[in-house]
Amino acid sequence: MKDAKRIAVIGATGYAGFELARLLLRHSEVKRPTFYLRGKSAQARCLTQIFPQLRGWGEAPCRPLSIDAIAASGEGTAFLATPPEVSLELAPQLLSAGLRVIDLSGAFRFRDPEIFERWYKRPGPSESLTKSAVYGLPELYSGQLPDAELVANPGCYATSAILALRPLMEAGWVDASRGIVCDCKSGASGAGKEPKPETSFVEVNENFRAYGVFSHKHTPEITEHVGIDSGDLIFTTHLLPLERGILSTISCWLTEPRTGQEIEALFRKFYANRPMVRIWPAGKLPELQHVAHTNFCDLGFAVDESGKRIVVVSCLDNLGKGAAGQAAQNFNLMHGHAEATGLT
Amino acid sequence: MKDAKRIAVIGATGYAGFELARLLLRHSEVKRPTFYLRGKSAQARCLTQIFPQLRGWGEAPCRPLSIDAIAASGEGTAFLATPPEVSLELAPQLLSAGLRVIDLSGAFRFRDPEIFERWYKRPGPSESLTKSAVYGLPELYSGQLPDAELVANPGCYATSAILALRPLMEAGWVDASRGIVCDCKSGASGAGKEPKPETSFVEVNENFRAYGVFSHKHTPEITEHVGIDSGDLIFTTHLLPLERGILSTISCWLTEPRTGQEIEALFRKFYANRPMVRIWPAGKLPELQHVAHTNFCDLGFAVDESGKRIVVVSCLDNLGKGAAGQAAQNFNLMHGHAEATGLT
Amino acid sequence: MKDAKRIAVIGATGYAGFELARLLLRHSEVKRPTFYLRGKSAQARCLTQIFPQLRGWGEAPCRPLSIDAIAASGEGTAFLATPPEVSLELAPQLLSAGLRVIDLSGAFRFRDPEIFERWYKRPGPSESLTKSAVYGLPELYSGQLPDAELVANPGCYATSAILALRPLMEAGWVDASRGIVCDCKSGASGAGKEPKPETSFVEVNENFRAYGVFSHKHTPEITEHVGIDSGDLIFTTHLLPLERGILSTISCWLTEPRTGQEIEALFRKFYANRPMVRIWPAGKLPELQHVAHTNFCDLGFAVDESGKRIVVVSCLDNLGKGAAGQAAQNFNLMHGHAEATGLT
Amino acid sequence: MKDAKRIAVIGATGYAGFELARLLLRHSEVKRPTFYLRGKSAQARCLTQIFPQLRGWGEAPCRPLSIDAIAASGEGTAFLATPPEVSLELAPQLLSAGLRVIDLSGAFRFRDPEIFERWYKRPGPSESLTKSAVYGLPELYSGQLPDAELVANPGCYATSAILALRPLMEAGWVDASRGIVCDCKSGASGAGKEPKPETSFVEVNENFRAYGVFSHKHTPEITEHVGIDSGDLIFTTHLLPLERGILSTISCWLTEPRTGQEIEALFRKFYANRPMVRIWPAGKLPELQHVAHTNFCDLGFAVDESGKRIVVVSCLDNLGKGAAGQAAQNFNLMHGHAEATGLT
Repeated sequence: MKDAKRIAVIGATGYAGFELARLLLRHSEVKRPTFYLRGKSAQARCLTQIFPQLRGWGEAPCRPLSIDAIAASGEGTAFLATPPEVSLELAPQLLSAGLRVIDLSGAFRFRDPEIFERWYKRPGPSESLTKSAVYGLPELYSGQLPDAELVANPGCYATSAILALRPLMEAGWVDASRGIVCDCKSGASGAGKEPKPETSFVEVNENFRAYGVFSHKHTPEITEHVGIDSGDLIFTTHLLPLERGILSTISCWLTEPRTGQEIEALFRKFYANRPMVRIWPAGKLPELQHVAHTNFCDLGFAVDESGKRIVVVSCLDNLGKGAAGQAAQNFNLMHGHAEATGLT
Repeated sequence: MKDAKRIAVIGATGYAGFELARLLLRHSEVKRPTFYLRGKSAQARCLTQIFPQLRGWGEAPCRPLSIDAIAASGEGTAFLATPPEVSLELAPQLLSAGLRVIDLSGAFRFRDPEIFERWYKRPGPSESLTKSAVYGLPELYSGQLPDAELVANPGCYATSAILALRPLMEAGWVDASRGIVCDCKSGASGAGKEPKPETSFVEVNENFRAYGVFSHKHTPEITEHVGIDSGDLIFTTHLLPLERGILSTISCWLTEPRTGQEIEALFRKFYANRPMVRIWPAGKLPELQHVAHTNFCDLGFAVDESGKRIVVVSCLDNLGKGAAGQAAQNFNLMHGHAEATGLT
Repeated sequence: MKDAKRIAVIGATGYAGFELARLLLRHSEVKRPTFYLRGKSAQARCLTQIFPQLRGWGEAPCRPLSIDAIAASGEGTAFLATPPEVSLELAPQLLSAGLRVIDLSGAFRFRDPEIFERWYKRPGPSESLTKSAVYGLPELYSGQLPDAELVANPGCYATSAILALRPLMEAGWVDASRGIVCDCKSGASGAGKEPKPETSFVEVNENFRAYGVFSHKHTPEITEHVGIDSGDLIFTTHLLPLERGILSTISCWLTEPRTGQEIEALFRKFYANRPMVRIWPAGKLPELQHVAHTNFCDLGFAVDESGKRIVVVSCLDNLGKGAAGQAAQNFNLMHGHAEATGLT
Repeated sequence: MKDAKRIAVIGATGYAGFELARLLLRHSEVKRPTFYLRGKSAQARCLTQIFPQLRGWGEAPCRPLSIDAIAASGEGTAFLATPPEVSLELAPQLLSAGLRVIDLSGAFRFRDPEIFERWYKRPGPSESLTKSAVYGLPELYSGQLPDAELVANPGCYATSAILALRPLMEAGWVDASRGIVCDCKSGASGAGKEPKPETSFVEVNENFRAYGVFSHKHTPEITEHVGIDSGDLIFTTHLLPLERGILSTISCWLTEPRTGQEIEALFRKFYANRPMVRIWPAGKLPELQHVAHTNFCDLGFAVDESGKRIVVVSCLDNLGKGAAGQAAQNFNLMHGHAEATGLT
């Protein structure tokens, strides 16, 4: 019998994997999770061999990855913290073995497999899988989570931009024909743990740069879930000399003049009862330090005197609400737990 | 007799002042400059008392500020590294005493004194002064510098944004009716040397935030010298956790599709023979570390596949090309020296 | 009737105060604590007005400081997060009102009031107070905590150095006549929240410096609790360009050759059953990132081939084990709770 | 005919290589130097292909490494910015070809080849080479430089420690029998440009750690040139979260009480006429920011009230005085140029 509280975590050796481990080890609705590892890390027997920082915080068994072992284990939910090409291979096997799957990669984020193929430049999943997958942004799609077998955890930049824009777009307040600019900045943990010349200390420290202009993989998540033509969006990502956090500065023009009060009310109504989104008072803007090491997405904005130009600032922790924390939030809603369980 | 090579520097106790001192002490066309100080620093007798880091680099005399002493000294050019309200008072006195003046503050940057009054919220200069002042952006107005008596050194953000946009705007390639977004980020030395809670190490480090949205004083410099209606510009400034540099990410839509080659050619032609602007090849973007401790403004861009959306990235050192370096560049052109003298 | 679970926190507006608030809001043995504030902050009505980052984490009432109000409240324990001169005044009043007091300042750390007077350069507490005060380093003095009315929470550097040296000194293994060098480095949050020129971002970032050589106030805590003559100790403190953490590098010579195994065994035995000290295997050294945002003190060491020279590395979070976390640990032991309650 | 002003630089692709290129491109006694590259970089035709940051600063030809080409070129001096095993192979060939050689690696730093073999764990150079090599610390051995054919540029930590200790040791003021502790901290550029897990941004930022305790290769340089038994030295190195600079905190006990005045006088006399060493007044300590991007070694100290304990703080830029700058200083003295030529 599958036990929903028993969890298999696969491939958690990077920064998001560490954050996921940290959260699950202290989650009241999770029984001691098991970590299945691939490659060099497969020799580890326990989690503190992989993450010595967890000593004193918690411990869990590690095993070499084996779908058969997972299938036989009684574990009911699997978190995939693997690259998309690995998730593409493992997710169907885990689903067949009767587990529910939360995938942190980009593999199942698009209904249309062609979008995956165009942006990730490799063959995508079968359409039957993408049709059934739920895009795991709980503030928008919580209703679909209780029945989801496969949840595609959103991209970190995408989460930040979509949560900022969706209320304004649904209300029809944005003049999208003038264009929307999402100018996003991320800390270096977003670039992964693998050493690369461009993420060495000397190259990141006292430096700042844009990258992936017009080619970032999170682009189609934003256009789809914001509801905007790709020709009307300019989405630019930058690398900040700090460890954690994404701050997105979103600039657009409104169809009609709006006051700060009206806009604040719109945001507050849209995110009423959503514990992980915090709305800032009109004219006050959130900062990265307010969300580091949390699962919050903080939203603030400024509107000009004419009421026609707006800047929305959206902050989150790329490893928290942008990855592992959001995965845990999805887990909570899939299983009927309170949304913020284990996240504050 | 005034000697153009003899220089009075007034109020150089902050970060831009330090950079100015560093440059002038090694400038081949400057005879040992004299530093006139106000307030607590007025007791200093020599520059290394103010800036111990200059020991071994150079030394210069310091004196309490006195317009009479300057007038009698034979010094031919004055640099004002003072707040705008002090520059407003001192510049006319120095001009009357027969000196040419380069002011690093915002006091004389606008032809229309009302613009100063609206954005700086204090009485502005007389119209006769603003009419004769030259906006000291040498890449645009070098022709006016040889005869200038009063040069208003531009704002750091403004320099960065104007140099990026002016070629595209003059060519008529930008669809300004869709709007232009200048998303600018600066290092902490731009916030000045005076200790403030929001610029303490713990508040800036591992943090990133937007500020001055729709209210930054450099806004009217950008609208005037780019030639854009203020309602079509969204200009946002941010504080980076690093010491030096401004990177501006400028997003807009083009009237007609353009290729990377065409755009690169436009920039190269516009800045031909301008030694302090470096154009990057199409699709390659400059980074802050390329310009730190230099007087360069580096310009790069990316254009999308359709040729309609463009992102221009403009990098400079806020204390170099954004302040002291540009002041020295203006000095060079005012006196007929090679533009890059003392700057590379 | 005093309720030991009801807590008054006084003066918690700095970085250690924030950490204390964060811990107490989630401590299972603490009923909603009340914060008593002085000066400008005294107008705050709730904690998130002081610390907006706590929104979503927890909330608590704030009141202007009044000993009478505290006395009447039924609160049984007071945390003093105040400067020593304020603690000197308030602690006796709180004790008279029947509360037990944990003071985070240096006011009551010395049995001999003259030591306070010499190092803090102001009149010290009465001898009756210092005699009864317990030096709140639980790993050494846990036996005295259950009955303590007044606990003097140790200095952050002192905690780091004492925990590293005490096992070796008690064993008689150190040749103290050759001298002991404690070379300690702290993050910038240790310098407090008040803006000062030397703690501004530009002065700390990309910089490193020693300070307080032969004059640091934590010196007499180290000599007393390590048991070493002050002439045989060289204790130097430095400011690191990072937010949190103290790393102490402690160098000395041993009386007899010892192996890594022997030394590791000594440390393990000394700190057996002490959940907040983690011993690293011989030759492996802890790093600051391992202890940031925790209440652990990590101890590692290296010994040379001859077994005569030893370097001990001691790491802790200056706001955690170095201040607020240790205060909570003392609270736990004063009231018979498990030592690590609320700390992991 | 060899021309001493024509220079071959070999293997300059790392951070020290960049600094060396930057210095030599602007050195008044150097004719356009040629860069000889190995491995992947050997395809580069000009220096700005390797270091795009040099655009606008200077340019120089690059060629694949060939001793024959160098021999035929007329170049009179070679800088080796290569790993020790490569320097061991190339230096004799260059000397045979009639060039004078400045080697930045550790290959020729020890008179006794066995020391090299023990610390570098590979076969060392021939004794005839090490006997003729000059240890290129100009403040101590400038007299040997004019005739030197092979100069071994010192290690960065070693330079820092030796310059701090040598005056006190030569004067016989240090009680070496009590031991000397050199607690040294370096910025991350010292760890080289090759990407490694432990030098990625996320691992260095907000972190601090000791490394190489009792095993650092610079140890025997310190013991030899300070003149101390290795059992009396504890030399520990640490990695700072910043780019450039080494600060060494050196603690020891004096044989007789000395005043600050006496000690300052000793240092000033020892380094009189040495333009690259700056002595700080007694009780004032240098900071890393004072020496970053310079070739200075700054020395300051504090002595306790009894006059028996002393802490010397020594600061330099690990790429400047610790590597490339010192190499240029050696070049100057080898060829009879003023010592500071091209260095300020």
